[in-house]
Amino acid sequence: MRDAFHEELDHTSDQLVEMTRLAGSAMARATTALLDADIGLAESVIAADEQIDALQRELDDTSIMLLAQQQPVATDLRIIVTGMRMSADLERMGDLARHVAKVARRRYPDSAVPPVLRATILEMGQVAERIVAKAGSVIASKDLHTAVELEQDDDEMDRLHRQVFAMLLSEDWDYGMEAAIDITLIGRYYERFADHAVSVARRVVYLVTGEWHESYTPIVRVP
Amino acid sequence: MRDAFHEELDHTSDQLVEMTRLAGSAMARATTALLDADIGLAESVIAADEQIDALQRELDDTSIMLLAQQQPVATDLRIIVTGMRMSADLERMGDLARHVAKVARRRYPDSAVPPVLRATILEMGQVAERIVAKAGSVIASKDLHTAVELEQDDDEMDRLHRQVFAMLLSEDWDYGMEAAIDITLIGRYYERFADHAVSVARRVVYLVTGEWHESYTPIVRVP
Repeated sequence: MRDAFHEELDHTSDQLVEMTRLAGSAMARATTALLDADIGLAESVIAADEQIDALQRELDDTSIMLLAQQQPVATDLRIIVTGMRMSADLERMGDLARHVAKVARRRYPDSAVPPVLRATILEMGQVAERIVAKAGSVIASKDLHTAVELEQDDDEMDRLHRQVFAMLLSEDWDYGMEAAIDITLIGRYYERFADHAVSVARRVVYLVTGEWHESYTPIVRVP
Repeated sequence: MRDAFHEELDHTSDQLVEMTRLAGSAMARATTALLDADIGLAESVIAADEQIDALQRELDDTSIMLLAQQQPVATDLRIIVTGMRMSADLERMGDLARHVAKVARRRYPDSAVPPVLRATILEMGQVAERIVAKAGSVIASKDLHTAVELEQDDDEMDRLHRQVFAMLLSEDWDYGMEAAIDITLIGRYYERFADHAVSVARRVVYLVTGEWHESYTPIVRVP
């Protein structure tokens, strides 16, 4: 059986996984709200962000409490500090989902996404959902293979992001400037969402291997 | 005389102030590079970001070392944890300055900023420089009046940001879509830069007063 301290650490790990679930659900619903011009769904994403923020505060309070009372060193210390960094990434991912939902709300009853970009934005939403689910798996299982896969999802997000710019700059774009600004910002939100998921996974890899990959390639030694 | 531990804490505070100086200098030079289409300056900002990253790593290593060796509690513990969060904000501010410089580089030998927006972008650069300088003062002096002023600079940044959108959407905009995308992203980079400076200042205020203001208004009790 694990001692009380390590049970607390397990609990913070569970809370981080829960944050990935909430952030993923928020981005998935924000994407639907955006594509379907669903104002009710947009409002619910905006309101639900408070849950993610509250979870971060709770996690941080527990972490500070553990640092003060348990005076951890070595690996335990690093786990706590890394957990606080991951919770900051995940809190920010919640904000980015909220930003997407706010664009949906601003353009209601229209959709902010013109027909030519629906498929691309749908896919960005799906990659976002997938990448944060994998970040959750990496936290829960410390599985480095999943961390490598996740980097590939991020490459996919970058490819979709470039596709968005290509469409904005093509002859076919005749949806005006307001839609172009929305789409430029939305593209950025999805890209940053994926970046933060990558950052979460890299922090776990760093905890496990002691190696930080700024530009991650699958050369990590998988045990 | 202060003991060795508190001297270390003072040193990390100095390093945070140094990070604000570097981030401010980077954003000021990135703005000039953008407005003057100065490729050399843009390259130097991009290269110099490594310095800010290195300072963050150093600061984090020191913080972890202090947590492990000194086992601080109460205020000292909060100072260290808050310092790590501030260094993350400041590192990100360096990234944002680098993003601005990259737009300057991408558009060289043209300027990414059309004549009608030069004054606005110049001002955004100045507000960015001012707000991060104030964040440095707040860290160094714990002066809550400066923290309040800084929130006003952030309001000013938001006003300029809205001005950018208004210009993009006006009849007068005839610089095409590529410039519009650049400007949309640049506007976002300056706005986020200011947000992170606000976050740094709020963290200091929180350390001093124990109160966190999500939407800060000058009701803080200034001692």
